[in-house]
Amino acid sequence: MGISLDQARTMIAATLETGREMGLKPLSVVVLDAGGHVQAFEREDGAAPGRFAIAHGKAYGSIMLGMAGSAQMARAEAQAYFMGAVNGVFGGQVVPVPGGVLIRDGSGSVIGALGVTGDTSDNDAVAAQAGVEAVGLVAEI
Amino acid sequence: MGISLDQARTMIAATLETGREMGLKPLSVVVLDAGGHVQAFEREDGAAPGRFAIAHGKAYGSIMLGMAGSAQMARAEAQAYFMGAVNGVFGGQVVPVPGGVLIRDGSGSVIGALGVTGDTSDNDAVAAQAGVEAVGLVAEI
Amino acid sequence: MGISLDQARTMIAATLETGREMGLKPLSVVVLDAGGHVQAFEREDGAAPGRFAIAHGKAYGSIMLGMAGSAQMARAEAQAYFMGAVNGVFGGQVVPVPGGVLIRDGSGSVIGALGVTGDTSDNDAVAAQAGVEAVGLVAEI
Amino acid sequence: MGISLDQARTMIAATLETGREMGLKPLSVVVLDAGGHVQAFEREDGAAPGRFAIAHGKAYGSIMLGMAGSAQMARAEAQAYFMGAVNGVFGGQVVPVPGGVLIRDGSGSVIGALGVTGDTSDNDAVAAQAGVEAVGLVAEI
Repeated sequence: MGISLDQARTMIAATLETGREMGLKPLSVVVLDAGGHVQAFEREDGAAPGRFAIAHGKAYGSIMLGMAGSAQMARAEAQAYFMGAVNGVFGGQVVPVPGGVLIRDGSGSVIGALGVTGDTSDNDAVAAQAGVEAVGLVAEI
Repeated sequence: MGISLDQARTMIAATLETGREMGLKPLSVVVLDAGGHVQAFEREDGAAPGRFAIAHGKAYGSIMLGMAGSAQMARAEAQAYFMGAVNGVFGGQVVPVPGGVLIRDGSGSVIGALGVTGDTSDNDAVAAQAGVEAVGLVAEI
Repeated sequence: MGISLDQARTMIAATLETGREMGLKPLSVVVLDAGGHVQAFEREDGAAPGRFAIAHGKAYGSIMLGMAGSAQMARAEAQAYFMGAVNGVFGGQVVPVPGGVLIRDGSGSVIGALGVTGDTSDNDAVAAQAGVEAVGLVAEI
Repeated sequence: MGISLDQARTMIAATLETGREMGLKPLSVVVLDAGGHVQAFEREDGAAPGRFAIAHGKAYGSIMLGMAGSAQMARAEAQAYFMGAVNGVFGGQVVPVPGGVLIRDGSGSVIGALGVTGDTSDNDAVAAQAGVEAVGLVAEI
C-alpha cells in the first residue's frame, strides 16, 4: 500500500508543528511516493522561494538510492565524486544531506520519502521524523 | 501581498471539492507564487504519478508569460512554433492549455497562479476557478 | 502489489514469442514499475541500437500520464503542441504511440507499463498485449 | 561479433546468482553493447527504483572511456575535476566506480560492458566478473 493524500497531509502538518515547537525557521516539506513522484508539498510563509527544489532533492535521492539523507551524506563525504556522478544520472535532482527520510511501513517496505528543508539539516531531520511517526509509519533518517 | 500558505491550502481544498462535486477524475493542484515558485501541491489518490509536472507546467507558463491557460492555448493553436520556442527558453516547463489560471488580487496584480490537471482541460479550469474564488481572489482562466 | 522480476521476465518472453509467431521484425521490450522505473528490458538480436529509448518512451509516457499509447496518440493528433509540451515537462522521455500499454491488476490499479518497439506501432501493441496477458494481468493498449 | 541476447541473459542470471551465493543485497544488472546501447537489464525485487540509472552509468562510462570501473575510480580520486568534465561531455551518464566491467572477447576486443549495482562497489564488481565469465568471455573489472 502506498501513502494516501490524507496521510501525506498529516505528515506535513506534524512536521511543521514540530518545527514551530522547536523554534525552527520556516520549513518546507514534500512527500514523495515509492516511485519518487510528488504527492504533496507545503512551503511555510517566510521560507525562501527555492525551497521546493531542496526539499524535493532530499526526498528524491532517498527514494532513488534507497538511502536516507544521513547515509547519502556519509557516502558524499567519503567519495564526493561518486555522489556527483549519481547526481548526473538523476539530472541533478539529488541533495545528499539529512532532512531526506525514507518512509517504511510495518513490514519494512519503503513506501515513500519525506523531505524537509529550512533549518539546519539535523533539525530538518528531527522534524521529518516526527512527521512520519505522526501517522504510525517508520522513518529512516 | 503574496498568497499565504493558509490561502493556498484553502484554494487547493476548494479545487478538489469542486472536482468531486462535478464527478471529475482525481485531480492534482499546484499553487505557485508571483515568482513562479511552488508554494503548495496536492495529488489526489488514484491520479497518475506524473501529474505534478503537468499541473506545474500549466501554472508556470501562466506566471512566466502573464497569460492564463486559455490564452496560451489560443496562441499555440495560432502559432505553434512560437509556443515551442517559448518552451525552449523556459526549459520545457510550459504546458499551454486550460487549467492554468492567473491569481489576481483586488487591485488586479498577479500574485500567483494555480494549476490543475486530471480531467479534461476545460473541466480542470472550472475547478481551478472555484479554488481561487474560495479565498476571495480573482481567477483569470 | 507490484510486478515481480519473474513476472517481468515472463511478460518479455511472451511478447518476443508473439512477435516471432506473427513474423515481426526483432522487438525490444521494457517493463516499468508503477513509478515509471525500469525493471527489466531485452533487445532482440538484429534490432537497432536505439531501441531501448523508444520502448522506454512508450512505457514511460503511459505511466506518467495514466494513458496508454493509443490514447496518447489520439491526443497528439488532436493537439500536437500539448503532447510536445508534455514532453518538455518529462524531459523528452515520452513516445506517444501504440506499443506502450498500461498493466493493471485484477482490481484495476495500474501496477506498471510495458513498452514494445520494432515493428509497426499497431503490431507492437498486439505483441505487448499478449505479453501482459501471459501472466494473467490486464493490458490497456 | 557482438553479444547475443542469449549471452546477455546468461550473464545477468549468473551475476544475480553470484550475488545470492555471496549474500549480497538485491542487485541490478545491465548489459550494454560495444556502442554503449542497452541490450538487457534486470532489477531484482527489493532493489531501490533508481538502480537502472546507476547500473547504466557504471557500464556506460566503461564503454565510452574504454576503462573499467576500478580504473575510472582511480582517475576520479587522482583528478576529480577531470572525471567531472568527462561527465559533462557525456551528459552526466558516467558513474566511475567498481561494478562497471568491460567485456572482451578472446581476441581482446571490447564487445560490451556489464554494470552492476546494489551492494558495495567491490562486491558489485565480483558479481559482475562472475557474470561475464559464465559465457566464456573476459571481464576487465
